[in-house]
Amino acid sequence: MLDAGRVEAANEAAFAKIVSAEPVLTDVRPAAEVISGLGEWDFLHAGPPLHGWDEACGVLQASVLGTLVHTRRAADLDEAQHMAAEGAVHLLSANDRNALGTYGGVIAAETPIFVVENSASETRAYTALNEGRGKALRYGANDPETLGRLAWLEGEFAALLGAAVRLSGGFKLFDLLAQALHMGDEGHSRQRAASALFLNAICPYMLETDFSTKEIEHAVRFMAGNEIFFLPLSMAAAKTTMTAGAGISDSTLVTCMAVNGVRFGVKVSGRGDKWFTAPAPPIHGQYFATYGPEDANPVIGDSEIAETMGLGAFAMAGAPALARYVGGTVEEATQLTLDMYMITVGEHPRLKIPALNYRGIPTGVDVRRVVEQRVEPVFSTGIAHRRPGIGQIGAGSGRAPLQCCVSAYRSLSENA
Amino acid sequence: MLDAGRVEAANEAAFAKIVSAEPVLTDVRPAAEVISGLGEWDFLHAGPPLHGWDEACGVLQASVLGTLVHTRRAADLDEAQHMAAEGAVHLLSANDRNALGTYGGVIAAETPIFVVENSASETRAYTALNEGRGKALRYGANDPETLGRLAWLEGEFAALLGAAVRLSGGFKLFDLLAQALHMGDEGHSRQRAASALFLNAICPYMLETDFSTKEIEHAVRFMAGNEIFFLPLSMAAAKTTMTAGAGISDSTLVTCMAVNGVRFGVKVSGRGDKWFTAPAPPIHGQYFATYGPEDANPVIGDSEIAETMGLGAFAMAGAPALARYVGGTVEEATQLTLDMYMITVGEHPRLKIPALNYRGIPTGVDVRRVVEQRVEPVFSTGIAHRRPGIGQIGAGSGRAPLQCCVSAYRSLSENA
Repeated sequence: MLDAGRVEAANEAAFAKIVSAEPVLTDVRPAAEVISGLGEWDFLHAGPPLHGWDEACGVLQASVLGTLVHTRRAADLDEAQHMAAEGAVHLLSANDRNALGTYGGVIAAETPIFVVENSASETRAYTALNEGRGKALRYGANDPETLGRLAWLEGEFAALLGAAVRLSGGFKLFDLLAQALHMGDEGHSRQRAASALFLNAICPYMLETDFSTKEIEHAVRFMAGNEIFFLPLSMAAAKTTMTAGAGISDSTLVTCMAVNGVRFGVKVSGRGDKWFTAPAPPIHGQYFATYGPEDANPVIGDSEIAETMGLGAFAMAGAPALARYVGGTVEEATQLTLDMYMITVGEHPRLKIPALNYRGIPTGVDVRRVVEQRVEPVFSTGIAHRRPGIGQIGAGSGRAPLQCCVSAYRSLSENA
Repeated sequence: MLDAGRVEAANEAAFAKIVSAEPVLTDVRPAAEVISGLGEWDFLHAGPPLHGWDEACGVLQASVLGTLVHTRRAADLDEAQHMAAEGAVHLLSANDRNALGTYGGVIAAETPIFVVENSASETRAYTALNEGRGKALRYGANDPETLGRLAWLEGEFAALLGAAVRLSGGFKLFDLLAQALHMGDEGHSRQRAASALFLNAICPYMLETDFSTKEIEHAVRFMAGNEIFFLPLSMAAAKTTMTAGAGISDSTLVTCMAVNGVRFGVKVSGRGDKWFTAPAPPIHGQYFATYGPEDANPVIGDSEIAETMGLGAFAMAGAPALARYVGGTVEEATQLTLDMYMITVGEHPRLKIPALNYRGIPTGVDVRRVVEQRVEPVFSTGIAHRRPGIGQIGAGSGRAPLQCCVSAYRSLSENA
């Protein structure tokens, strides 16, 4: 049985680690240089581990095939398909290696990744650069145009960005995020403010590099047109933060929520790296154009690390322009945030919601509260077409299955 | 007597002109090149006309003296003081020449100004570039450091900015403003989102100019650090918009609100360029550091053109991070916007407030409604120290005096 006093103390310790985190973007480098043991055929994907290639959803498969071609492991998509079917690809959970997959996107050895360090706890997290909306490899598009843009993004652009980041001495991501939360972002689905502020902040350093004016102009145009450029930085900041709160005996705090297209997974501080899974939940979404639920790929992604920290759907009260994601009205969006205070242990002292008179975002989901209140953590997500090649067709929200929290709570009790 | 039916029709016509405005930033040029008849000793200031130098408040005097030195009309502030006291300076109302003065700032013949054209009605408006917060000439600071920064701002920087604006083919300011209103700006006192978005939009064109990387870097650093850079663009956009609705017989719509440090002035569509004035109202503010109301310069500025169009304090419901300007809580800020719907004729179809479930900003103050409801239009403003050299010491809000609207209404009735 869990001892209530010990749980409280453990959660307090975990919460203290979480709210004192100071995530700093320090570098952009090929994944294999910073993620130890990442082999040539290892592909890091979102969510808990999958049982082989056949279990991977359509978008994840499309993303892996596109990556095989993009990284010249395969000559074309047909060859890539053969290689994957014959078991050449090792699918591994990104979250188990301090990395994160955005939607169906994968990280291979040569993928350039953001390096984010939590200077308060020396935890690190890694995410791939954001390609923008619509036709993107992480949403299953793998046509020549998409891969051509990716070649530039992961080549010239990543090199320029890395040079600028190193010249800057690092960007404190919570300074940007805190301001973005005052500007209608919720830190997950809406990244307009953070992306604009980040470009403002990094642009002078891009101009200090040896890259040509033409190359910088190309980069600035791309970033200025990509309103979710900051998403992987938000995710990595949340990951380094939640990792700092992990591994504390008896703590019932959730340190990770992620989904792999088949199963939703939760990690809880007191049980370290163990996953507690349940079938992936349905998504209630708004679809673009003529698309509908029957077109949707099952939900996948590690971006729910944002909600794990109190961003995203947890902070929806601060993002009225996104209210449609979660129902329709501002009142419903506000209520959602208020509900999340019921299942979290505290409010973040730096990340605040002006619309709630500067109340901190609801931080630190406690599986005890989830189980007792029967209130499931909410999360928002993009929606991709289930057929490769089409890309994003909508956005919406879902709930982390109660079963994950029940299993985690039971496991904590049994191991107490 | 005013005929109700004719007033309604006139207001409808004025409102149609206002909501169909499309203000475009097209150029940055010396004032004398675009404002006809602007003589060498003419200085355009905020608010209705003043009766000579002695009536000018401390901050306006400091700004004029600084401008005399900055433009080399005087060797130093002492000489400038002598020249001004002897009547060398001609103070003229900026608003009467389609220009606007920000706080105590003045426009002289060589001042580089933004040229904003309303492509729907061919009206134009002109504003000076924004120097940033704190020690700024428009707030009465005129020390060598402030004037040195201004020399760069109105020299190299203005030339670069102008070149970039011309290369761009023009920026549709309402596209930026509409997005900024979704990002916690209210379009007057808070310009963080609009300023960040504008820098992102213009930066690629700056990189297309012949200016050096070093010069562009300097410009980008300045703009990235100036969270109210967009303010004069917001003001000029509002001015071209409201001018389009001016001069319509029988219309009771307010087309201008401004204050000169002594008198608050209102113009109303049916009476063209005539000013209706009353003593400048008190400001309820939040002061920086140890400053208080006794330190404050009387209110001055043309930035209330923002409120005239429905931005600023009228749109406070969309800017919860500014709630402290108008009382304290988000609920009070929201109520303020709701109150303004009582005295306006419509809601803007493009400029909307997500927090009010995308209701348009309250647009088109009707002096009849103001007089009948006894609800005075609210406006926000910076606060400067009354002594030259100190600059901004706070920010707050005030109310356009009822008397201005009563006089305008009476004049319309008498001339009907």
